[in-house]
Amino acid sequence: MKNIIIASTSTVYNSDYLAYLLPTLEEHFKHTDTILFIPYARPSGISHDDYTAKAKEAFKKIGKDVKGIHEFEDPIQAVKEAKGIFTGGGNTFLLVKQLYRTETITAIQNAVNNGTPYLGCSAGSNICGLTMETTNDMPITYPPSFKTFGFVPFNINPHYLDPIEGSTHMGETRETRINEFHTLNTQPVVGLREGSWIEVKGDSFILKGTLTARIFEQGKEAVEIAPETELNYLK
Amino acid sequence: MKNIIIASTSTVYNSDYLAYLLPTLEEHFKHTDTILFIPYARPSGISHDDYTAKAKEAFKKIGKDVKGIHEFEDPIQAVKEAKGIFTGGGNTFLLVKQLYRTETITAIQNAVNNGTPYLGCSAGSNICGLTMETTNDMPITYPPSFKTFGFVPFNINPHYLDPIEGSTHMGETRETRINEFHTLNTQPVVGLREGSWIEVKGDSFILKGTLTARIFEQGKEAVEIAPETELNYLK
Repeated sequence: MKNIIIASTSTVYNSDYLAYLLPTLEEHFKHTDTILFIPYARPSGISHDDYTAKAKEAFKKIGKDVKGIHEFEDPIQAVKEAKGIFTGGGNTFLLVKQLYRTETITAIQNAVNNGTPYLGCSAGSNICGLTMETTNDMPITYPPSFKTFGFVPFNINPHYLDPIEGSTHMGETRETRINEFHTLNTQPVVGLREGSWIEVKGDSFILKGTLTARIFEQGKEAVEIAPETELNYLK
Repeated sequence: MKNIIIASTSTVYNSDYLAYLLPTLEEHFKHTDTILFIPYARPSGISHDDYTAKAKEAFKKIGKDVKGIHEFEDPIQAVKEAKGIFTGGGNTFLLVKQLYRTETITAIQNAVNNGTPYLGCSAGSNICGLTMETTNDMPITYPPSFKTFGFVPFNINPHYLDPIEGSTHMGETRETRINEFHTLNTQPVVGLREGSWIEVKGDSFILKGTLTARIFEQGKEAVEIAPETELNYLK
């Protein structure tokens, strides 16, 4: 049974890395003392070691150890043996390129589909959708495909941001960008605000946190849905 | 001799489409009455016809006609015969995909390198750089490459936006994104604010408009440069 947390962000304003999620993560990863960390998205170009140290520090607060996938000689074997997986945020293009290059994309997909608990934040959440085509990131490198895990039958837009009222900037708003996505693609998009996450248990997808999420379906007006709403109707 | 205008945006706040650029365009396209328009970027999914009509309306004010490249049976021949080319803004991923699909990417590159006057706005400017890897757009479709025209030996970030002071949003600022680009890529990036453009005449690249631009070079602090600065030192 799939057991996944798809979080908009690792960090909410004025708070420590992962702090708002720790009570949830204690339950989520209760069957393991060690988490396999995927640092490939490298926010601000941070090294795999430094990024793993950051995750380690946060998980220590709930008594868990963290190992970076780059520490293993055989990353695919590391995924197969992991009892819990966490993919951190950063640049989605770089993350997806590395997942394909190391062929861990299929390994993680299989493991998580077979029940290994997974946590994604930001870029690590974006890849839980059908494609990475609703990322906010800059395309700083060219991945071999935009196809991602597809743990949910829709796309994720993490760090969802409402239009800024009274803005004089002529660049596209987030909503305009997602509407452009829907001129070429049919799958729904869940705009997840910072502090929200989707809890996946088997075929049940529930919005968690205190904020509403914004749901975009092709050919429909976008709607706000409340926390604890089941998202299973989206496909 | 190359003769190019690389504009951050087609439209400045509270103004009509292309209005702020029209005096410049009158001079830029003085040797032709007809402009070939590349509508492939389709902002908000607008049709090629509707987008071309919009460009036509703007250019009418300076006595020029506009023809969309999609109106021609042979788009490559249309590019070869054009006396002026304008690529409009919209989604850079879609634009680049269509340029490769129609093989007009090489045709336009050759024409403009041989002196056909070119205007780019937003996505149409982004592709004047070495790669499209500093676009702000959502990757709504997968192009066969991120390589673009390379009319200038650096990358463009159009609609450059300064960090919003006091923001509580945890998503990356534009500057953070460009710094991430520089963890993997060496070419400089010019952050062009809305209302600015680069005038290319042969090997001379000059910042135009009333605003400063922000220059990002790998391993250096970003700097502001004043209008009328020569950008030839960037490589």
